[in-house]
Amino acid sequence: MEFENYFSVWNQLTTNQKNRIQKGLITRRFEKGTIIHNGNMNCTGLLLIKSGQLRAYILSDEGREITIYRLFDRDICLFSASCIMRSIQFDVTIEAEKDTELWIIPAETYKSIMEESASVSNYTNELMATRFTDVMWLIEQIMWKSLDKRVAFFLLEEASIEESDELKLTHETIANHLGTHREVITRMLRYFQNEGMVKLSRGTVTILDKAKLEHLQNE
Amino acid sequence: MEFENYFSVWNQLTTNQKNRIQKGLITRRFEKGTIIHNGNMNCTGLLLIKSGQLRAYILSDEGREITIYRLFDRDICLFSASCIMRSIQFDVTIEAEKDTELWIIPAETYKSIMEESASVSNYTNELMATRFTDVMWLIEQIMWKSLDKRVAFFLLEEASIEESDELKLTHETIANHLGTHREVITRMLRYFQNEGMVKLSRGTVTILDKAKLEHLQNE
Repeated sequence: MEFENYFSVWNQLTTNQKNRIQKGLITRRFEKGTIIHNGNMNCTGLLLIKSGQLRAYILSDEGREITIYRLFDRDICLFSASCIMRSIQFDVTIEAEKDTELWIIPAETYKSIMEESASVSNYTNELMATRFTDVMWLIEQIMWKSLDKRVAFFLLEEASIEESDELKLTHETIANHLGTHREVITRMLRYFQNEGMVKLSRGTVTILDKAKLEHLQNE
Repeated sequence: MEFENYFSVWNQLTTNQKNRIQKGLITRRFEKGTIIHNGNMNCTGLLLIKSGQLRAYILSDEGREITIYRLFDRDICLFSASCIMRSIQFDVTIEAEKDTELWIIPAETYKSIMEESASVSNYTNELMATRFTDVMWLIEQIMWKSLDKRVAFFLLEEASIEESDELKLTHETIANHLGTHREVITRMLRYFQNEGMVKLSRGTVTILDKAKLEHLQNE
């Protein structure tokens, strides 16, 4: 069962616990753009990403978005199973950023095993600490970094994820990642274009001068 | 031993585990203003607050501050023991906001018990989830709330903590809580004063119209 290689605590489970997980395990495929989980839904369960890309974000009352973290192959999404802990009192929305194949461990199954297994509980602690680190990084970005640096960082990160300098990204998408307005991103990208760092065309941002973007991001 | 009443997972420990905690336990008293923990220090350990008030904050390279969460009687500070999990890759500074009495469970003691006890590990999960909820609330505040609402909220929160409308607070202190500059807070408080919501005098902000502040905060 290939799943075992994605769930690193597997070998520390009892046979009974392994059976319960195998019995409950669901394999799903989501198309790019699908909302996999949101705060109003039932507790979806733990998501283990076989391949693809997910984005976790929060929404304002006015419909603004900001990306909290992104998940890639072999990552695990805990907050889609927020009901496993009563102290998780916030909602995130999880969206497939690419076509994604994943396994779901139902929340009730996971919760019952976590309650009896120190290994699984400590594994969960490490998962949550990883996301906590992501979120603390985000606060530092929002608080201490100007938007030009954050846009530069985002474009460089996208180029690294996509392994391409030609990024299929609307200004709206960038705004939703960074928690700002489309108009603000358009203005910033035009400035980047005037400085020779990027070239803009419909639905595409092409990075022309990576070194200059890196310099801006770090200065 | 009074400590047992503050550490709610106590009754789920084995006798051996109880003995190890009792052996390692340290009682400390910190004066208001003391930095109890910062990222450069060794891993201090888990702090259980008997009485007093702590503030956890992060610092920018330029020395700006923002409060991440505050802890009161019976609260427990986990991130002063960040070495218990390798995935906690961020630093917070912990300061005594008031004279504070607390117990310290040394990090190594706590870690070894957490590794063997599902109860303690799940307890730790709940602690971290509580702080995660605090931090997600903070992101929402920073992202979607204007500063006037955040200042109003902060003053009302302080009045509730202090059970007084006469708050001994410098503009600098408020700025450090909210992650902004003193000058910005001074300007905001003068606006509040012109609107009849507060009265300013040296080192003191007196709330004159709580209903109006509450209205501003919620509108």
